Amino acid sequence: MEKGKHLEIMRHSAAHILAEAVQKLFPQVKFGIGPATADGFYYDFDLPRTLTPDDLAQIEELMRQSIAADRPFIRDEVSQEEARQIFASQPYKLELLEEIPDQKVTIYRQGSFVDLCRGPHVASSGEVKAFKLLSVAGAYWRGDERRPMLQRIYGTAFETEEELAEYLRSLEEASKRDHRRLGRELDLFSIHEEAGAGLIFWHPKGAIIRQLIEDFWRQEHTKRGYQLVYTPHLAKANIWERSGHLDFYRESMYPPMQSEGQDYLIKPMNCPGHILIYKSKLRSYRQLPLRLAELGTVYRWERSGVLHGLSRVRGFTQDDAHIFCRPEQLEDEVVGVVELARFMLQSFGFQEYQVFLSTRPEKYAGTLEMWEKATSTLESSLKRLDLPYEIDPGEGVFYGPKIDILLKDALGRGWQGPTIQVDFNLPDRFDVNYIGEDGREHQVVMVHRTVLGSMERFLACLIEHYGGAFPVWLSPVQAVVIPIADRHLEYARNLISQLKAEGLRVELDDRRERMNLKVREAQTQKVPYMLIIGDREVQSSTLTIRLRSGENLTSQSLSYFKERVRKAVERREGL
Amino acid sequence: MEKGKHLEIMRHSAAHILAEAVQKLFPQVKFGIGPATADGFYYDFDLPRTLTPDDLAQIEELMRQSIAADRPFIRDEVSQEEARQIFASQPYKLELLEEIPDQKVTIYRQGSFVDLCRGPHVASSGEVKAFKLLSVAGAYWRGDERRPMLQRIYGTAFETEEELAEYLRSLEEASKRDHRRLGRELDLFSIHEEAGAGLIFWHPKGAIIRQLIEDFWRQEHTKRGYQLVYTPHLAKANIWERSGHLDFYRESMYPPMQSEGQDYLIKPMNCPGHILIYKSKLRSYRQLPLRLAELGTVYRWERSGVLHGLSRVRGFTQDDAHIFCRPEQLEDEVVGVVELARFMLQSFGFQEYQVFLSTRPEKYAGTLEMWEKATSTLESSLKRLDLPYEIDPGEGVFYGPKIDILLKDALGRGWQGPTIQVDFNLPDRFDVNYIGEDGREHQVVMVHRTVLGSMERFLACLIEHYGGAFPVWLSPVQAVVIPIADRHLEYARNLISQLKAEGLRVELDDRRERMNLKVREAQTQKVPYMLIIGDREVQSSTLTIRLRSGENLTSQSLSYFKERVRKAVERREGL
Repeated sequence: MEKGKHLEIMRHSAAHILAEAVQKLFPQVKFGIGPATADGFYYDFDLPRTLTPDDLAQIEELMRQSIAADRPFIRDEVSQEEARQIFASQPYKLELLEEIPDQKVTIYRQGSFVDLCRGPHVASSGEVKAFKLLSVAGAYWRGDERRPMLQRIYGTAFETEEELAEYLRSLEEASKRDHRRLGRELDLFSIHEEAGAGLIFWHPKGAIIRQLIEDFWRQEHTKRGYQLVYTPHLAKANIWERSGHLDFYRESMYPPMQSEGQDYLIKPMNCPGHILIYKSKLRSYRQLPLRLAELGTVYRWERSGVLHGLSRVRGFTQDDAHIFCRPEQLEDEVVGVVELARFMLQSFGFQEYQVFLSTRPEKYAGTLEMWEKATSTLESSLKRLDLPYEIDPGEGVFYGPKIDILLKDALGRGWQGPTIQVDFNLPDRFDVNYIGEDGREHQVVMVHRTVLGSMERFLACLIEHYGGAFPVWLSPVQAVVIPIADRHLEYARNLISQLKAEGLRVELDDRRERMNLKVREAQTQKVPYMLIIGDREVQSSTLTIRLRSGENLTSQSLSYFKERVRKAVERREGL
Repeated sequence: MEKGKHLEIMRHSAAHILAEAVQKLFPQVKFGIGPATADGFYYDFDLPRTLTPDDLAQIEELMRQSIAADRPFIRDEVSQEEARQIFASQPYKLELLEEIPDQKVTIYRQGSFVDLCRGPHVASSGEVKAFKLLSVAGAYWRGDERRPMLQRIYGTAFETEEELAEYLRSLEEASKRDHRRLGRELDLFSIHEEAGAGLIFWHPKGAIIRQLIEDFWRQEHTKRGYQLVYTPHLAKANIWERSGHLDFYRESMYPPMQSEGQDYLIKPMNCPGHILIYKSKLRSYRQLPLRLAELGTVYRWERSGVLHGLSRVRGFTQDDAHIFCRPEQLEDEVVGVVELARFMLQSFGFQEYQVFLSTRPEKYAGTLEMWEKATSTLESSLKRLDLPYEIDPGEGVFYGPKIDILLKDALGRGWQGPTIQVDFNLPDRFDVNYIGEDGREHQVVMVHRTVLGSMERFLACLIEHYGGAFPVWLSPVQAVVIPIADRHLEYARNLISQLKAEGLRVELDDRRERMNLKVREAQTQKVPYMLIIGDREVQSSTLTIRLRSGENLTSQSLSYFKERVRKAVERREGL
């Protein structure tokens, strides 16, 4: 058997062993479901009280005993009727049972536990090797906010203790880098449930990073012939009807506002706005390609259960652009977008990525011929760029094929990155045309593309990628000046004003606290440079530069420091 | 009698003479109302057909005959009953009549015309001197979109023909500068009724101007210790309840979106968002003042009848900031805001403005003592700045006194500019506090302030102020390179790339058109510099620079041109 497959089965069995242990502690438990996941397993329980960390330790101990006893997993086929009797006191299992159309269902037993389960499982509990329970979290039954909230115990299992230890280390590293935690600690953003779930408030330090990213983005797009626009955040329903959003996307939209017999809807996408600008005058083939770009804030209704910090939100600013071009310009345009995307990602320190080409799904707009042509154009663009890619068959959007780029962060985890989508649908729905060389109207090809995805998700990714220690050009505070005693304040203030004049983001820590505490706090805030000023520095007109890496550089000149920062910013380097 | 008062009476009488003339042409006319306005007069008519320019000429002729006949204006008092008989065939007059509570009403007759009117009027029609009819526009009866659309004839009248001529000249100048017309001609923005009235789509050229203004604004605000933030465009209803917007401002808000039993509302103001950020952590007196700034796009429901281009819209981006400070910091903060505002306005070429201090209205929040203190602080700020100001008694907002600055454009017309409002209300409603030196909680004073008002209205003002001929730093296209023949193309392309490398916004006009036509079009587009390249220029490696003022500078070096533009941009000059 394939190794990954065996791991998955073992994890699923570990979930059953977990359920068995929980039942020993809480005989009245009602079981939800307990599948394997990409990284481990979980099981959902309806329990009379909230679990504590002590409970987890005890459950783990009971699981160890089951594993040591090496009890077999026994598969059985029973009729619906028999199953209903076996699970008579298990309402969630009965509900699942009702949805199984077959007359016969499979159950698995090990020790005192029995579960409605398709399997497969390991032969006996002893096969479950290194495992660990990780956490408890609330989870609605079937993910539905109107159903009961169960307690979900997460765990993981590996073939060896070494693999488990390695995984736990990576988990700890990921948790240290969790953007929700760092976002709070570094004062980058907040979410206020009373104002609405999934809506981001960017604090000054987060806003500086966003502004720097946006400025850089705008500059690089302008260089490459994009033209920036701004469009409103809402439009009348008939626009969304014409675009097809009301038919295909309504569930993801905020509900309408009704005024004077008109429905207005908040935009979930920027495309129709850009189309209206395109159509505000007659366009000739000479003006194509037209590349309209916008840092456009859109709103989409996501179920509250799936919201997650900055990475899954209800309002986000897309780094969006739409390219209106002639069919024969498509390949060059796609190449240009991929090159731009690669340049942008490299600038943020992402070197590795995977490229996917998603092809025609079952339901599609346009003709087969259009799809073939567009897909082969996307392929030849990727070949021209010498980029290895995988085909994701049938995963294109209904309106056209697309290229997706998955970028890898410092922990090797994948993040959804740039996407380039060809669209045959909107040009047709909105009659988006140009006057060709032949003096007649032709339909444009439209490309939707984003390079960073959204400011929100990209910041989440950056925070976790850098572990909050942003490179100098993105650091909200680039240096903290720390005078040791009051007699060093004048020198420190003078230093601050010289650095500010250079455009540096510097702060003075003039609190009457011990130097070590100030250094520790600046370190926690991941400020790249701490400039420590004491008697020696004042007398010799120098600086002691402490790097956030821990290194100390004594007796440095101000001009050395300025030059060092200038270079680090220019090269977008860490320190 | 005061001169202005006589002018107003004369204009009102002119409106009656207009109505008399219209009745001669259309005996079946139904009359609306016909008041004097700041610049002239109008009268609303319900007519069997749409008026043409020829009609206006004919009506003017009939008015001139009435004036020449010098017929007296006769005032009469009649009972409601008599009035109802007189206006039996005039439904709009009957409607007005119903709303007059008095038993006796006044009517005015001149010639064959009689009107329900409080007066006063001139003694006889001969007193109406220089007059002119200006335009016809649709106007809903009583400004209500559900009532019939009437035809409104606008006119004006002056004491002398010279004054009338002067006024018509200024009208013509204003019409040339109308931002709606120039916005279209210069391709700056558009409004799409199908997407929603009063919602602005910024085209690339308009967006460049906005971006330059925003960049400048951010830079100057950062220098002065403001911290930028971003907040969502919508929030749950309970936020707007707590802020008082649902009680006091609901009519100006877009209707709610209902989702999962929750109402969400689009923000009409940025204040609650900034308060949530302020309150995201405990604030000490050491951190005050805290100045949170945002280029925040807000949406307000305005009646469609009052919408006007960019200057009266439903969605706009405020250059907003909220200052959270201790009471004793208020004066310095207000001085700082006024200085910043003056600097910003001067940078855009506005030298003249009027300052108003608005004091406590009848309905107010807070104590009398708070009002007195805040008002006198605003006064002493203005005195410290040596700024002359007028008191606008009772015109403060209910939550605090304010300073308004009215700026004057190149035609001497006033535009609403910076505003600085003290707010006692929101800090109370949201418990916006800081920990004082005494270790206890104290309430902050909050200042709402905007310097430019909104990007939309400010662009309207700039377009009309500059007549579309933006200073070099704001010009969407700073120079057009015009090669005379194909053999000059290479030189022109080389020039373009050198100028682009300097960061200039330049375009190449390589169409096969005559030079004169290209120059004329660049001139119409108000491009500051046209660089004309012919044989002489190529041979001598020089430029002919044509300024949009019409001046030609021949045999100039590229370095002269670059330096000239650099200086003009730096000094924010016209050319």
